[in-house]
Amino acid sequence: MSMASMAEKAMAYLESAGKLTEDSLKDYIPEETETPKSLHSAMRYALLIGGKRLRPALALASYEFFNGKPSESIRLAMCALEMLHTFSLIHDDLPCMDDDDFRRGKPSTHKVYGEAAAILAGDALCIFAFELISRTGNAAVVEELARSLGTKGMIGGQIIDIESEGKSVDLATVDYIHYHKTAALIEASLVTGALLAGAKKEDLEHIREFGKGIGLVFQIVDDILDIESSTEKLGKKTGSDIKKGKATYPAVLGLDASKKKAVELYNESLAFLEKFGNRNTDTFRNIAALIIERSY
Amino acid sequence: MSMASMAEKAMAYLESAGKLTEDSLKDYIPEETETPKSLHSAMRYALLIGGKRLRPALALASYEFFNGKPSESIRLAMCALEMLHTFSLIHDDLPCMDDDDFRRGKPSTHKVYGEAAAILAGDALCIFAFELISRTGNAAVVEELARSLGTKGMIGGQIIDIESEGKSVDLATVDYIHYHKTAALIEASLVTGALLAGAKKEDLEHIREFGKGIGLVFQIVDDILDIESSTEKLGKKTGSDIKKGKATYPAVLGLDASKKKAVELYNESLAFLEKFGNRNTDTFRNIAALIIERSY
Repeated sequence: MSMASMAEKAMAYLESAGKLTEDSLKDYIPEETETPKSLHSAMRYALLIGGKRLRPALALASYEFFNGKPSESIRLAMCALEMLHTFSLIHDDLPCMDDDDFRRGKPSTHKVYGEAAAILAGDALCIFAFELISRTGNAAVVEELARSLGTKGMIGGQIIDIESEGKSVDLATVDYIHYHKTAALIEASLVTGALLAGAKKEDLEHIREFGKGIGLVFQIVDDILDIESSTEKLGKKTGSDIKKGKATYPAVLGLDASKKKAVELYNESLAFLEKFGNRNTDTFRNIAALIIERSY
Repeated sequence: MSMASMAEKAMAYLESAGKLTEDSLKDYIPEETETPKSLHSAMRYALLIGGKRLRPALALASYEFFNGKPSESIRLAMCALEMLHTFSLIHDDLPCMDDDDFRRGKPSTHKVYGEAAAILAGDALCIFAFELISRTGNAAVVEELARSLGTKGMIGGQIIDIESEGKSVDLATVDYIHYHKTAALIEASLVTGALLAGAKKEDLEHIREFGKGIGLVFQIVDDILDIESSTEKLGKKTGSDIKKGKATYPAVLGLDASKKKAVELYNESLAFLEKFGNRNTDTFRNIAALIIERSY
């Protein structure tokens, strides 16, 4: 099958998983009419203005691959993952961080609700995500997610990203930033689905390595799109990495070598799927194709 | 026994629980020499500059009361509670929130490390707390804490507190703010110790009600001290509530009626301890005496 038709299949999968995510989010997140109204409103705004819902889809794909049956647990986890991702976006966009006024094609949360409410809405989404995960009764998933988000995960990537702005950095630093800032949560999304489905220990490691690989591909493509795509397509300002002197693969390796690196990592990721023998890994392969082929 | 000597006994208990908390924190929190260094440094700064360590002490007292044996679980929970409290202080002190330059007698985290690092250090402490709690294997404690912190807990209190600044508010609003902003986590600290010790369901409810009561007393006394104490004693600026037009009990009821209200709530809290029959509730009583008697 061609990459384009694989990506198309992945789009259909993401759309259906996305619908499940949004329906579930609407079930769990309190209404704007509930006190504290402004906070619930800000949380709903940030969560429900759209997005690819990639992380919940990866958790679902992994859960299904390991024979998880439809359950409330996977729905809780899918919502938690989207909340954790959204929490990170809200805080990243703040003036003292990346200072981005637009996100997903709309004004950023702090532009609409102010900085204090944006910080608290991010905090509340992070905390609510842990509440939802705790309701699966699976403490191992709580630990997996907390590790992927903490100083040795996403937050660690974010601080080094900010501290590296405007400086000349080496490839090792960009690798560090991209793995921690982006790949760690993508990896944890796949592992979450696997844990909830009761996957075997060795299988957890294979899916983890696949996730790490495509997570890095995702971020390199993000860097490339910031140069080659348009603000309309992405829903956020393009060209901002160069303007801010961000530590990216294109900045360190150049555009062509970055594209080559993405293909290399893509191939390495797929190799981990071989470990699953003759089990059907098509959904993972399709999503990987979408991640490297995507133009937004 | 006199209130003063009960408070003295509580001080000794807090000192010993505080030592266990600090020793454990030093075990768990990564060193400043570990990447990302600036973030670990900010987290250690905020956590280790002191404080009463009241929440871990309450968890320990409750754990011991319900016959919990010394274990890693209670140490993990004590550290998690102090991290969650510190996370809330760091974010509360930010310029767009309460804009406080001093905390625990030292410059606030954002004054030392900048706003971006302060926000991320708060985020990281919140996330790390959930990691530590997950390591107890007890998903019910994760849920208890997440509920006490979210929009229907601490964060909910914080947003209404900020939104009420400079406005004329009624007693119901002050009750809402104080219960959510402060009492919810104090209540959850006691419930955490009880859950880890395997307390019975009805006992959980009694200890919860006691915690809610003394949590409210704690915040009313805080309001009173902001008027009657000194900056040197408190380690943070006094008189700032009036200056900022904060919704406090003294602002709504006046100073004398606030003191009366504290005593009323104190007595109501103690009544819940009667439910434990002839079991020895001295540690709870001593801590309650300290909370109402404290001058800092």
